[in-house]
Amino acid sequence: MTATLTRPLTVTEAIQTRRSVRKFVPEPMNQEDLREILRLASLAPTANNVQPTRFAVIQNPELQAKLQEAAYGQAQVTSAPAVIVVYSDMEDVLARAEETVHPGMGEEQIKTRAEGLRQNFVQQDVAQRGQWGLTQANIAFGFLMVAARGLGYDTVPMLGFDPEKVRELLGLPAHVQFAGMLPIGKRAEEGFPHHRHSVERIATFY
Amino acid sequence: MTATLTRPLTVTEAIQTRRSVRKFVPEPMNQEDLREILRLASLAPTANNVQPTRFAVIQNPELQAKLQEAAYGQAQVTSAPAVIVVYSDMEDVLARAEETVHPGMGEEQIKTRAEGLRQNFVQQDVAQRGQWGLTQANIAFGFLMVAARGLGYDTVPMLGFDPEKVRELLGLPAHVQFAGMLPIGKRAEEGFPHHRHSVERIATFY
Repeated sequence: MTATLTRPLTVTEAIQTRRSVRKFVPEPMNQEDLREILRLASLAPTANNVQPTRFAVIQNPELQAKLQEAAYGQAQVTSAPAVIVVYSDMEDVLARAEETVHPGMGEEQIKTRAEGLRQNFVQQDVAQRGQWGLTQANIAFGFLMVAARGLGYDTVPMLGFDPEKVRELLGLPAHVQFAGMLPIGKRAEEGFPHHRHSVERIATFY
Repeated sequence: MTATLTRPLTVTEAIQTRRSVRKFVPEPMNQEDLREILRLASLAPTANNVQPTRFAVIQNPELQAKLQEAAYGQAQVTSAPAVIVVYSDMEDVLARAEETVHPGMGEEQIKTRAEGLRQNFVQQDVAQRGQWGLTQANIAFGFLMVAARGLGYDTVPMLGFDPEKVRELLGLPAHVQFAGMLPIGKRAEEGFPHHRHSVERIATFY
């Protein structure tokens, strides 16, 4: 656990106290916590367990400065001790589809299921299946933010960046699609409380 | 809290014990818990706070039977006491963009910001901005599943259904895009443990 928490947060506490934080305490991330947060995010479900979500974890002030430029100068990218770029890589999924099948299935089943997975996407082009993979990566992105807060960390989800430049800086292939960029650390400001529609406005009961 | 939990789950516990459950105890959802789960999901962040996520909550055996047909007969749709259909409605967002701006901003700012939001999407067609809204709805979908588990409930995310038929059954406009269908209740089976890639497989450290 983090130094600032005496106990892990409940889900309700984590979601209620999560808010966008753009100024962070200048201390490195605890590396065990960081890996635990990524592990929890990896437990998000995906259709057919395809697991297209990938994480680029940047803890390097020089690279963060370049990412900040690609994010139109937004200061939170260098204020945070770490930045997690969340993206979807469906081409990697299809190239190594066997790895998405439970190893207990046995060799024959693994082959059959991996081939079935490839067939599901064969009629879509790279952009279409990339877009689909992105929906699944966004579910994991949600898990990631709740997991971070649950262990006492703060984050701010960002979509305001030039994806071409970020791909180039991270050495990622052209087909990957970004769920977002997530500076993470401990809050050095309170942030603003949520302003949200009421449940009545957004839910219909049948 | 639910009858089966003596305390709310931590984020780590909720994410670790969440698994796809397809057989549910045949008892109605506690309506307060249901609303609290939806409220927690509504606290998920969205870019520019656009809040495109909408929830159709079905607790009606006849309608669930029809949804089950639209979901190729999958039994969990009628086994669960409730089904939450999560979708994105960007056209509703744009038609009522003023409601996404904090009321404390004052009338002038609200007008300006709402107009700015509309301008952001004016060059996209309905399908394109619908697809974008769906990425944001999927973040909320992630929050929803963790929130449900945090209060002691079980779920199973589903994408295997005919979207046209579901739109028709729920009386939803053609432009809405589905994040998924989520049967929810208390588990009457254990479900299977996660099989996931290792953190090393899906994360790159820079």
